[in-house]
Amino acid sequence: MFNIAVIGGHKATSKYLKIAEELGRLIAEQGWVLICGGREGVMEAACRGAKSAGGITVGIMPTTYGEDANEYVDIKIPTGMGYARNFLVARSAQVVIAVSGSYGTLSEIAFAFNDEKPVIGIGSWKIKGMIQVKSAREAVKKAKTHLKAK
Amino acid sequence: MFNIAVIGGHKATSKYLKIAEELGRLIAEQGWVLICGGREGVMEAACRGAKSAGGITVGIMPTTYGEDANEYVDIKIPTGMGYARNFLVARSAQVVIAVSGSYGTLSEIAFAFNDEKPVIGIGSWKIKGMIQVKSAREAVKKAKTHLKAK
Amino acid sequence: MFNIAVIGGHKATSKYLKIAEELGRLIAEQGWVLICGGREGVMEAACRGAKSAGGITVGIMPTTYGEDANEYVDIKIPTGMGYARNFLVARSAQVVIAVSGSYGTLSEIAFAFNDEKPVIGIGSWKIKGMIQVKSAREAVKKAKTHLKAK
Amino acid sequence: MFNIAVIGGHKATSKYLKIAEELGRLIAEQGWVLICGGREGVMEAACRGAKSAGGITVGIMPTTYGEDANEYVDIKIPTGMGYARNFLVARSAQVVIAVSGSYGTLSEIAFAFNDEKPVIGIGSWKIKGMIQVKSAREAVKKAKTHLKAK
Repeated sequence: MFNIAVIGGHKATSKYLKIAEELGRLIAEQGWVLICGGREGVMEAACRGAKSAGGITVGIMPTTYGEDANEYVDIKIPTGMGYARNFLVARSAQVVIAVSGSYGTLSEIAFAFNDEKPVIGIGSWKIKGMIQVKSAREAVKKAKTHLKAK
Repeated sequence: MFNIAVIGGHKATSKYLKIAEELGRLIAEQGWVLICGGREGVMEAACRGAKSAGGITVGIMPTTYGEDANEYVDIKIPTGMGYARNFLVARSAQVVIAVSGSYGTLSEIAFAFNDEKPVIGIGSWKIKGMIQVKSAREAVKKAKTHLKAK
Repeated sequence: MFNIAVIGGHKATSKYLKIAEELGRLIAEQGWVLICGGREGVMEAACRGAKSAGGITVGIMPTTYGEDANEYVDIKIPTGMGYARNFLVARSAQVVIAVSGSYGTLSEIAFAFNDEKPVIGIGSWKIKGMIQVKSAREAVKKAKTHLKAK
Repeated sequence: MFNIAVIGGHKATSKYLKIAEELGRLIAEQGWVLICGGREGVMEAACRGAKSAGGITVGIMPTTYGEDANEYVDIKIPTGMGYARNFLVARSAQVVIAVSGSYGTLSEIAFAFNDEKPVIGIGSWKIKGMIQVKSAREAVKKAKTHLKAK
């Protein structure tokens, strides 16, 4: 089973929320597990998309009891580590896809590169090594290529 | 969705491996997600049991890439934290069930109590506050009582 | 430089607070760095003792900013991990000394054993493998024996 | 006591190693504790500089036993978390100074911003919000301004 992380802020514009939701749906359609930080914004949109296609969603939560999970998270992994849980999001996925996002997202991108994972960006940070794409569909295509190479 | 952790050593006698397997099966039959450390011994037996009943298994792995997961783990959460990942196993479950086990298991029991979770023991440590039972069936019955009270 | 951890609850009787303070003093007199959880009770008493002898104290804090450190902590290592920071306390020391304490202390004892560190107890948990002593002086003597063997 | 983190790669050019060493020395002269990842390169140079001025150095190590610490680390905090220990480096400091560096450094910069700490850069990443300077002396001057404002 492959785990794909969708990362991005708990706040996002409707454009990126829509992309995140499509991304979640496409990930589920591939039979991949969606890994995310479990909260609002990009994370919630991606989870909603994944559930609309019958996928499994995992939320790696900043809190100790996971009470801040969005309603589309199936499996909560509460960490009680605050933002530091970001390294677990990156570590739990074979491919990381960033949709917009701020410094929290940046830490996940950096950790993914530390662990030598491919990082795909949609309207997110411009960090060397990232694969920049424009759409959810293109992101999933790139993810597939990477998973095949494994 | 409820998460139930089965903890215990990567080595165990056949008596406790059998109990762990039955425990995994019963957990899956309840529709609960099985959380464990993802490795051999008690963890593998519980995962095998859960899969035999069509359940979902999560392995919170000590390694960075999860290459040490047993073959019955559906969703790997690699942490790269070694034994320290034990606190995440305890934190990810609503009820923790210990089957035999050594110091690693003890750390998970202690963390579960820190987080005020019920801990059920089968042939494991005798720590004050633990609910001691003799069989997988009895353990699941106790777990159900606790989940209803929530 | 050797690091010695003093672990124990943020609440303790005056008997154990006195022992913890003497322990801190003796540790500093040996030129060892005192590692602890940085909070009240046994931790504060040990830090006060260490500072009375001119020692260095390190507090590995549960909070993100370390605002809960006692006034005798020289170097704060805020973790934002809550009780989970306990594994770092055990991991940072060559010898762990437990003075009374509850489940948090138990998790540190378990982690110390996971990492194959000696654990000395004074009125604390009775876990197999622990070296049980009655006084601060005796604990430091045992710690010295272990450090020489390294 | 203030903790200042110097972050940067375990490999660096002689130019940046020289800057890191001067930075360590200036930090120690201010009476600040030097926090770093405890390994080679920028970390070692900064520690050597701090020790040359009689400062205290803390190495937050990726390994479980800290055997990879450079010889100028006074206090080892082994974490066994690999690169994930980077969040602890950022969390332990009031000001973070980046000297060159790669993705590990980027994760520390991101974590510092998550925790709302000032980040000063010398020949490092160009991330919005960072204070870019050219010399060790200038970096310490900026750090002082931030510590006064607290």
